[in-house]
Amino acid sequence: MTGIPEGGLVLLYYDVRRQWLLRLERGKDFHTHKGFIRTDDIIGLTLGSEVKSSLGETFWVLKPTTHDFIMHSARQTQIMYPKDIGLILLKLSLTSGMKVLEIGTGSGAMTVAAATAVKPEGHVDTYEAREEFAEIAERNLKRASVISYVTVHRADATAGIEGENFDAAILDVGDPWPLIPAVHRVLSGGAPMVSFSPTMNQVEKTAELLRQIGFVNVYTLECFIREIRAEKGKTRPATIMVGHTGYVTFAQKVIRRVEASTGPRAVADSPADSSENAL
Amino acid sequence: MTGIPEGGLVLLYYDVRRQWLLRLERGKDFHTHKGFIRTDDIIGLTLGSEVKSSLGETFWVLKPTTHDFIMHSARQTQIMYPKDIGLILLKLSLTSGMKVLEIGTGSGAMTVAAATAVKPEGHVDTYEAREEFAEIAERNLKRASVISYVTVHRADATAGIEGENFDAAILDVGDPWPLIPAVHRVLSGGAPMVSFSPTMNQVEKTAELLRQIGFVNVYTLECFIREIRAEKGKTRPATIMVGHTGYVTFAQKVIRRVEASTGPRAVADSPADSSENAL
Amino acid sequence: MTGIPEGGLVLLYYDVRRQWLLRLERGKDFHTHKGFIRTDDIIGLTLGSEVKSSLGETFWVLKPTTHDFIMHSARQTQIMYPKDIGLILLKLSLTSGMKVLEIGTGSGAMTVAAATAVKPEGHVDTYEAREEFAEIAERNLKRASVISYVTVHRADATAGIEGENFDAAILDVGDPWPLIPAVHRVLSGGAPMVSFSPTMNQVEKTAELLRQIGFVNVYTLECFIREIRAEKGKTRPATIMVGHTGYVTFAQKVIRRVEASTGPRAVADSPADSSENAL
Amino acid sequence: MTGIPEGGLVLLYYDVRRQWLLRLERGKDFHTHKGFIRTDDIIGLTLGSEVKSSLGETFWVLKPTTHDFIMHSARQTQIMYPKDIGLILLKLSLTSGMKVLEIGTGSGAMTVAAATAVKPEGHVDTYEAREEFAEIAERNLKRASVISYVTVHRADATAGIEGENFDAAILDVGDPWPLIPAVHRVLSGGAPMVSFSPTMNQVEKTAELLRQIGFVNVYTLECFIREIRAEKGKTRPATIMVGHTGYVTFAQKVIRRVEASTGPRAVADSPADSSENAL
Repeated sequence: MTGIPEGGLVLLYYDVRRQWLLRLERGKDFHTHKGFIRTDDIIGLTLGSEVKSSLGETFWVLKPTTHDFIMHSARQTQIMYPKDIGLILLKLSLTSGMKVLEIGTGSGAMTVAAATAVKPEGHVDTYEAREEFAEIAERNLKRASVISYVTVHRADATAGIEGENFDAAILDVGDPWPLIPAVHRVLSGGAPMVSFSPTMNQVEKTAELLRQIGFVNVYTLECFIREIRAEKGKTRPATIMVGHTGYVTFAQKVIRRVEASTGPRAVADSPADSSENAL
Repeated sequence: MTGIPEGGLVLLYYDVRRQWLLRLERGKDFHTHKGFIRTDDIIGLTLGSEVKSSLGETFWVLKPTTHDFIMHSARQTQIMYPKDIGLILLKLSLTSGMKVLEIGTGSGAMTVAAATAVKPEGHVDTYEAREEFAEIAERNLKRASVISYVTVHRADATAGIEGENFDAAILDVGDPWPLIPAVHRVLSGGAPMVSFSPTMNQVEKTAELLRQIGFVNVYTLECFIREIRAEKGKTRPATIMVGHTGYVTFAQKVIRRVEASTGPRAVADSPADSSENAL
Repeated sequence: MTGIPEGGLVLLYYDVRRQWLLRLERGKDFHTHKGFIRTDDIIGLTLGSEVKSSLGETFWVLKPTTHDFIMHSARQTQIMYPKDIGLILLKLSLTSGMKVLEIGTGSGAMTVAAATAVKPEGHVDTYEAREEFAEIAERNLKRASVISYVTVHRADATAGIEGENFDAAILDVGDPWPLIPAVHRVLSGGAPMVSFSPTMNQVEKTAELLRQIGFVNVYTLECFIREIRAEKGKTRPATIMVGHTGYVTFAQKVIRRVEASTGPRAVADSPADSSENAL
Repeated sequence: MTGIPEGGLVLLYYDVRRQWLLRLERGKDFHTHKGFIRTDDIIGLTLGSEVKSSLGETFWVLKPTTHDFIMHSARQTQIMYPKDIGLILLKLSLTSGMKVLEIGTGSGAMTVAAATAVKPEGHVDTYEAREEFAEIAERNLKRASVISYVTVHRADATAGIEGENFDAAILDVGDPWPLIPAVHRVLSGGAPMVSFSPTMNQVEKTAELLRQIGFVNVYTLECFIREIRAEKGKTRPATIMVGHTGYVTFAQKVIRRVEASTGPRAVADSPADSSENAL
């Protein structure tokens, strides 16, 4: 158990509401409403240790989690939340070694989670046409130490997607429809994809198109999360919660047999009464 | 893109409701209400291909996802759902190479997800005292091809936990309290843990004890998930949804400085009005 | 406290799951899986009394509530649930003496609640074009003893609505748009209305049209309800809940000043970040 | 359709977020960020009319609904929301002529709704021990014009409840348990009651006691509500929602037969898997 190195990144924790991602540069003070903390006091400590501020307040030095990176990336623009991202990791079955395509990097929250899931042998190719978001995303990816597993393409994916045989794809763009045929082409057979949409209208249009283009197992989930305040004799849900981020639509690519003189054929995938799978 | 091998495991998909995990043994027919499928017809195909049943119905051969393994493991006993498991992966920051402790293997749904996240270089040590669950879990871990990254301890963890410096811990037992001091001891400094509980009473007791024993960043989430049925002109949420699985309580281990003549000291971690983190 | 009369209607209660609305006719046995009950044993009892079945099981004789009438009416077709209906009563400010217009009687669940709210001096005019539903609704209204406060119009409301100066209106039809101008015309100035829709597409179209036709205070709510199972040491939410019934859109009629050469003018009613009202 | 009288109460509406309950006194200006409105301009108008502010902005003059009275009463203390109150009206089957007992008036939001439901022939007896809340409640009851149907008892109900044969009872106090025997005594046989509690611990204790004291049909509901923002092409749920107010526990009084040498006997009312009632 060696000490925390200079240049390391820690989560400086005061309480559930007040916590900061902090890069440890020598000789820097970090100021809070509860007094300042000398980064020199942190360097060399064991993770989990306490550190006192100039006002004698106790802070704790913790290891940042993927969840922290997502929440701290999320500030500027993010609508995809940890609740959504966790589910996507499972549905896409992301694991070390996989090749992932992402379209719509945004501030990089999903990208950090995907890269964390596929490292060290896998890779994420992510497309972001808006220069300022690509910047923010790269910064967030560096901070989370996963930038080496990611290529940020500063380009519009509708102009072309490099590579093929991706193991999974993630779309987080307002207008995913023009991209779906290309995504189908560059995915491996049977591979899963996900599209994130804020409105049900978008969901409807996306699901329809996915079925037409050659995807099956198309279904959509909405996820809610609520904090529970645990306190002796007063434990109860938080008064305010996030009511909406977006809807997550899943699908898996299938390969049609070539048939003469046939246009795109809808795959029979009528919504069923239960998403329960028989074994 | 080589064909699907004999002995391989596929998701045989008919529609959202009817899909099966299928091990491909030569010469076996697989019977469904939509006719039977010859496994010999599947062996050698590309993933994503279609296969016809004896009744001419179209089935699709897909790659199973972690989500599928969880849902198919879940049958017998499971209350931890993908929605909960996805969130736990993020909060525990699971990634390749990590050492994870799990107590309460159950049918192995969470274990499959954790092993998938930490492979190929990490490992999961999981404890299950009930022989029949340990059996089921090992079967599910084998089917998901992650058994080599897991040690299933057929033992009661209260009798002792092997190893130390775990990067993360997961508790899914009805009575987690006697285990918390030992979990604290075997976790690395600053490392995260999670406890899953069906009732708010358990949450309250767990959160209190965590704060006393030496954890901070203690907070609890409840996750809801709802299916959206996407169909042209009729898109709407599903009529029935899962109303409850359990509450997920997170915490991170801290290390107290030894102070003379002091009993356990509560960590000041008063529930705050917002779990938002400042940067 | 006189006894329950012959011909009276009671709620025969065994447990939360097994309870029946029962009309007390002399000499009739009522059969259940827990034995039969003689209605003669109930007649003359005080409400709240117990009665034994032929198998010695305890049943209780309760007064039916509006909630019971709704739930028992709901069987055949209903998608508007007590959670939705309760909210509508408040938003429409229904109270004794009011004149209410309902379009889309269905099985009469909302009608029963509205009639209960406005009796004895008020009245509900309800339109139902489908003969079989009008039948069911009348039966349910009779059973709830509110038929004398209701006129069931067996007619399509698009063909014309009788009366004017209604204090409130309730629309529960798949296609409310052609009706909205007429509803505007027959409502009193400033009076509230509500439209119930299963899909967000319908909500969007309805809200748009309401704003155009001359309604303000247009907003939409979605209501969820979950049962909590209270049992010593095991209290928790029910595993399964109703995930969706529909969306409830509210609005209040306004009167435009006649301006020369002006078509319908949209009322500035931009959705705001909070529905909180300042005082 | 006579004009709005001097002294009348209106809802002055600007948009969904900006609306005020306004008592019309002659010669008074009402100031808003959108300019001031002369009350003299409103007096004599038809409800639903528009009125211009000094800055030329359009405001609308609407009739306040029970919902408005509740939301505007709710400011100071309220945790019982319209979603909860609507459900309670139905479960208690409130209608004109009923005698209702309320304990814990608070700011009078529930009282306004109950009085509106039972007027003109019914009555609400409500108990509030805290003088300042009794004041606020009376003010809110006057504003909603239902004060003549309510007696506000400025007293602690544990010291005694006046009257008997109430048709329904509503408890909104932190510690309802000492009151339950007295509530049982003053209710009519078979009559319904409701208790509102912020925590599940309270629910558990309340439900247990209700079953012991002589209530059946004991069950608890949690209600969530979410706003939908309807806007062309962008319709979606609001980002933030109320996550918790409290749990609503219902029960109906039963009358035990006197049996020699028997202490309180639990009523068999085991929580069931479904609250669906058979007909």
